[in-house]
Amino acid sequence: MAELKSKYDRFRQKANVIIYGTSTKAGRLFDLILLGLILLSVVLVMMETVAEFDLKYHSYLVLLEWIITGLFTIEYILRIITINKPWKYMSSFYGIIDLLAILPMYLSIFFMGTSILTVVRSLRLLRLFKILNHPQFTSQSLQLNQAIKASKGKIIVFIYFVLISTIIIGSIMYLVEGKESGFTSIPASIYWTIVTLTTVGYGDISPETPLGQFIASFVMILGYGIIAVPTGIVTAEIAKRTHDKVAIHKKPCTNCGTEDYPENANFCPHCGHSFDTK
Amino acid sequence: MAELKSKYDRFRQKANVIIYGTSTKAGRLFDLILLGLILLSVVLVMMETVAEFDLKYHSYLVLLEWIITGLFTIEYILRIITINKPWKYMSSFYGIIDLLAILPMYLSIFFMGTSILTVVRSLRLLRLFKILNHPQFTSQSLQLNQAIKASKGKIIVFIYFVLISTIIIGSIMYLVEGKESGFTSIPASIYWTIVTLTTVGYGDISPETPLGQFIASFVMILGYGIIAVPTGIVTAEIAKRTHDKVAIHKKPCTNCGTEDYPENANFCPHCGHSFDTK
Amino acid sequence: MAELKSKYDRFRQKANVIIYGTSTKAGRLFDLILLGLILLSVVLVMMETVAEFDLKYHSYLVLLEWIITGLFTIEYILRIITINKPWKYMSSFYGIIDLLAILPMYLSIFFMGTSILTVVRSLRLLRLFKILNHPQFTSQSLQLNQAIKASKGKIIVFIYFVLISTIIIGSIMYLVEGKESGFTSIPASIYWTIVTLTTVGYGDISPETPLGQFIASFVMILGYGIIAVPTGIVTAEIAKRTHDKVAIHKKPCTNCGTEDYPENANFCPHCGHSFDTK
Amino acid sequence: MAELKSKYDRFRQKANVIIYGTSTKAGRLFDLILLGLILLSVVLVMMETVAEFDLKYHSYLVLLEWIITGLFTIEYILRIITINKPWKYMSSFYGIIDLLAILPMYLSIFFMGTSILTVVRSLRLLRLFKILNHPQFTSQSLQLNQAIKASKGKIIVFIYFVLISTIIIGSIMYLVEGKESGFTSIPASIYWTIVTLTTVGYGDISPETPLGQFIASFVMILGYGIIAVPTGIVTAEIAKRTHDKVAIHKKPCTNCGTEDYPENANFCPHCGHSFDTK
Repeated sequence: MAELKSKYDRFRQKANVIIYGTSTKAGRLFDLILLGLILLSVVLVMMETVAEFDLKYHSYLVLLEWIITGLFTIEYILRIITINKPWKYMSSFYGIIDLLAILPMYLSIFFMGTSILTVVRSLRLLRLFKILNHPQFTSQSLQLNQAIKASKGKIIVFIYFVLISTIIIGSIMYLVEGKESGFTSIPASIYWTIVTLTTVGYGDISPETPLGQFIASFVMILGYGIIAVPTGIVTAEIAKRTHDKVAIHKKPCTNCGTEDYPENANFCPHCGHSFDTK
Repeated sequence: MAELKSKYDRFRQKANVIIYGTSTKAGRLFDLILLGLILLSVVLVMMETVAEFDLKYHSYLVLLEWIITGLFTIEYILRIITINKPWKYMSSFYGIIDLLAILPMYLSIFFMGTSILTVVRSLRLLRLFKILNHPQFTSQSLQLNQAIKASKGKIIVFIYFVLISTIIIGSIMYLVEGKESGFTSIPASIYWTIVTLTTVGYGDISPETPLGQFIASFVMILGYGIIAVPTGIVTAEIAKRTHDKVAIHKKPCTNCGTEDYPENANFCPHCGHSFDTK
Repeated sequence: MAELKSKYDRFRQKANVIIYGTSTKAGRLFDLILLGLILLSVVLVMMETVAEFDLKYHSYLVLLEWIITGLFTIEYILRIITINKPWKYMSSFYGIIDLLAILPMYLSIFFMGTSILTVVRSLRLLRLFKILNHPQFTSQSLQLNQAIKASKGKIIVFIYFVLISTIIIGSIMYLVEGKESGFTSIPASIYWTIVTLTTVGYGDISPETPLGQFIASFVMILGYGIIAVPTGIVTAEIAKRTHDKVAIHKKPCTNCGTEDYPENANFCPHCGHSFDTK
Repeated sequence: MAELKSKYDRFRQKANVIIYGTSTKAGRLFDLILLGLILLSVVLVMMETVAEFDLKYHSYLVLLEWIITGLFTIEYILRIITINKPWKYMSSFYGIIDLLAILPMYLSIFFMGTSILTVVRSLRLLRLFKILNHPQFTSQSLQLNQAIKASKGKIIVFIYFVLISTIIIGSIMYLVEGKESGFTSIPASIYWTIVTLTTVGYGDISPETPLGQFIASFVMILGYGIIAVPTGIVTAEIAKRTHDKVAIHKKPCTNCGTEDYPENANFCPHCGHSFDTK
C-alpha cells in the first residue's frame, strides 16, 4: 500500500514536471501538443459558426469537439491532482479559464445552445504567452509591457478627456442633425462621435445637414490632433526604452557587475569602484 | 438680530468651505455627491432621447429631472449666497454653465421642447477636472497640457495648410467628379476631402470616375504623409517632457554638482563621492 | 510733360510700396483688404455651386463676381505697371495665378460654363502665406518645412515600396474576388488597396469571399505596420528639431556671435575663441 | 570552329556585362529599357482588365502582350546563356519571377483564361529596387530597412497580441450581435474586429444593437491605444537612426578625437584645434 502511495507520488511529481514545467523535453512536447489542441479547438468553434460548413460536417465537428473536451478534461484533472495547492490553481485566472473551456460542452447536454459558449476557449490562447518564452521575445514583450505600463497614467487622463468630449460633441450633433440622419438618440450620437474621432468611419451614421457636416469636419480635424496624443505618449515611452538599450552594450563594472552607469562615468555609481584604468 | 446675523455669517462661512473647498471631509463628500448627481443628470438626458426607453419610463424620467433640477438650483443659490463676490462667480465660465444647466427645465414650463436643451448639462462634467485632483493625475495631465500647448504654434500652421489644401482639392474633385457621385457642391467636396485626408472615410460620398479615383488615391497617399505631421509634433513635445522628467527629481551631487547618475546610485559616477547619508 | 512723367513715376513708386511692401501702414492695409477680397471670392465661388443658394441669389452672386473680378483686374494691372520687371512678375507662380483668377470670368462672356473655372481663385489663398508673416508662425512653419524636406528622401523610398505593393496586392485581390464584389478591374483593385492601406476604408468596394476577407485582414494588419513608417520618419525629424531648439537658449559666442556649438564646448567651433572665462 | 567558340565567348561576356552590370553605359541603357518594358507590361495587363478598354482595343493589347512576352523570353534566354551558373539564376527569386512572367502567355495557347495570370508580371517591378541604386536612395532605404528589421521582434509580439485579441473580441461580438447585423460567423466577426481595430472601418458590417455599439466604442478607443504601438516602435527605431546619422559621416578631431562638433566647424570646440587643412 505504501509502495503504491510512493508510486503515485512519483507519478504526480513526474506529471507535474511535464505539465507545469518547460525545462524537460517531455514538458516542452506537452506544451506543444496542448498548444496544437487549443488552436484546433478554437478553429473548430469558428468553423461551427460558419453555416455552410456546419451543415456539411456537423457530426464530425461535434465528435471532434467532444474528443477535445475530453482531452481538456483529463488535462484539467491532471493539473489539479499533480499540484500541491489545487485550490490556488483552480481559483487562478488560468484555472478558471481552463474550467470555462470544458464546462459549456457538458452543460450543452442539459441545456440547448450553450455549446456556443465554448468560444471562451479562445481565452486559452493566452496560455501561448506562457509557452512562447523564447528569450528574445520575452525581452521584447517586457520592453513593450513596461512602455505601456508607464504610459498608463497619461492614457487614462487622455481617455477621460476624450469621453467627456464625445458626450458634449454627441449632444451637439444630436441637436443639430435630428432623427432623420441616424442620430436617433444621444447614445447613438456618442457612438458616431467615437467612430469619427478614432477615424474608423463606418458610414452607418453620417451627417447630412450642411451644419452637421461642418461640425463633423471640425471634429475630424481637431480629432486628428487629439488622437495623435496616445501615439505620442506610447512612442515617447518606447523611444526612451529603445534609447536606453544602447547603454546595454557597455562593459559591466569589474567590481560589482552593474551596467547601469552614465557613459562618461569615472566611478561605478553602485560600488564606488574607480573606472580609471591608467 | 445681531446674533442672527452672526449665525448666518457662520453658516455662510461653513457652507463656503464645504461647497468651494476640497480640503475638509464634508467638502470632499459634497464634491462626490455633486459628481454623482451630474453623472446621473447626464445619463437621464441621454435616456430621454432613446425613444423606446422614453416611452416606457417618461413620467419617472421627468420626475427625476425635476428633482435634479431642484437640487442644482439649491446648489446654484448656495454658491451665490456663500461667496463674497457673487457676480464674479455668476459671470465665470463655470457660473454660466451652472445656470444653463437649470434654466432649460424652467423654460420648458412656458415653451415646448426646450427641455432638450438640458443636454448642456454635460458641460458640467468639466467640473470633474476640478474635483479629480489626485496628485498623480494632475502631474500627468499637466505634462500633457504643456506638450499640447507647446505644439500649438506648429499645429495652427499645419491646420492652416490643411484647410487651404482641402479647398483646392475639393474644388478640383468637384470639377472632376460632377454632381452624379455626391460631389454636389464645392462645400460638399471639401467635406469629402476632410473625410478622406483624416482617413475617416465614411463612404457616404466616394469618387466613381476613374480620374476621380486616381486623384483620390493620390490624395490618400499624400494625405497620409501630411497627417503624420500632427502626430510628429505632439510626439516630439511629449518625448521631450518624458525625457526631461527623469532629471527633474534628482538632487545634484554635493561634491561635483552633476545630475548625471542612475536613480539608485550609491556613489557619484563622476567624482566617486558617496551618496550614503547615514 | 516732364512734370507729368515725374508725377507718374512718384505714383508708381508709392503704389509699388503699397502693393508689394508690407512695412508701411498703407501696405499692410492693402494686404488685409486683398486677403478679405480673396476669401470673399472663394466663398462666392463655393456658394454658386450650392444649387439651392444659387437659385435664390444667382443675380447677386454674378454681380458680386463681376465686381471682384473688376477689382482683381485693377490689382493685376497695377501690379504690372508699378513693377520694374513686369515680365518677371507675369511669368512667376503668383503672377500666373493672379491672371488665372480673372481670366475665366472674361471668357464666360464668349463661352458658356467657363465661369466655373473661377475655382482656381482658391489658389490665390496661397498668397496668405506671404501675408501671414508673424515671426512666431514663420519660425514654426520653417521648422516644419525643414522637417518635411529632410524626410523627403525616406518618404519617396517609402511611397515607391507602397506603390509596388498596391499593384501586387491589387492584382491578387482582382484574381481572388472577381467582378461581383466591385473588384471589376486591376485599377479598381489598386484603388481599393490604397483605400485600405491608408485606413480610409470607404466601403464602396469591400471583399465578400472568405478568402478575400482573409487577405484583406492580412493587408490591414501588415498595412498598419507599413503606414506607421511615414509617421515615424516625420516624427523623428520633428523630434530632432524640437530637441535642437533647446540649445538655442545658449549664449552666443562673444567673438563671432554663433550659437551653434556643443553644450560642453571649451572653444567656439567657428572662430576658435576660447570660452574659458577663468 | 575555335574562333567561333571564342567569338561566342566574347559575346557572352559582353552581354553579361550589359545584362547583369550597371557600371557601363550600355548596361544602364539596358536596365532603363527593361524598366520601361516592365512598366508597359504591367500597364497592359491592367488595361486588359478594364472591360470598356478591352472591348475596343483587344487585338492591339494581345499583339503588344505577345511582343513583350517575346522580348522577355529573349531576355530570359540571354540571362541563362550569358551567366556562368545558369541554375543558380533560374532557381533564384528573380529567376523564378522572370520565368513566371512569360509562362502564362504560352500556357494561354493551350488553356483558356490563363493569360490573366500574367499579372504576376507586376512582381518584376521589384527589379526596380536593383535598378534604382542612386546612392542617396540606397542610404535612405537602408536606414528604413534597418529600422524595420530592428522593430521586427517587437512587431511580432504585438501582432501576436492583436491576433489573440481579435479572436476574443470577434467571439464576443458574434455572441452579442447575432446573425442579423452581418456578424454571421466568428470568422466574419474577426474580420470586422480587424477592420475596426486598424481604423479602416468599411461599414460593410457594423454593430446595430446598443450593447454591440457600446462594445464597439470600447474596442475603438482601446484599439486606438493598441494601434499606437507599432507607430511607436517604428518611430523609436527611425529616430535613433536619424539621430545617429549625424555623427556617422564626421571624422574625429585629429587632436582630441571628439566627434561632437557642428558640421561646418572650423575649430574643434573641445581643444580649439583648427580644422583648416590649407
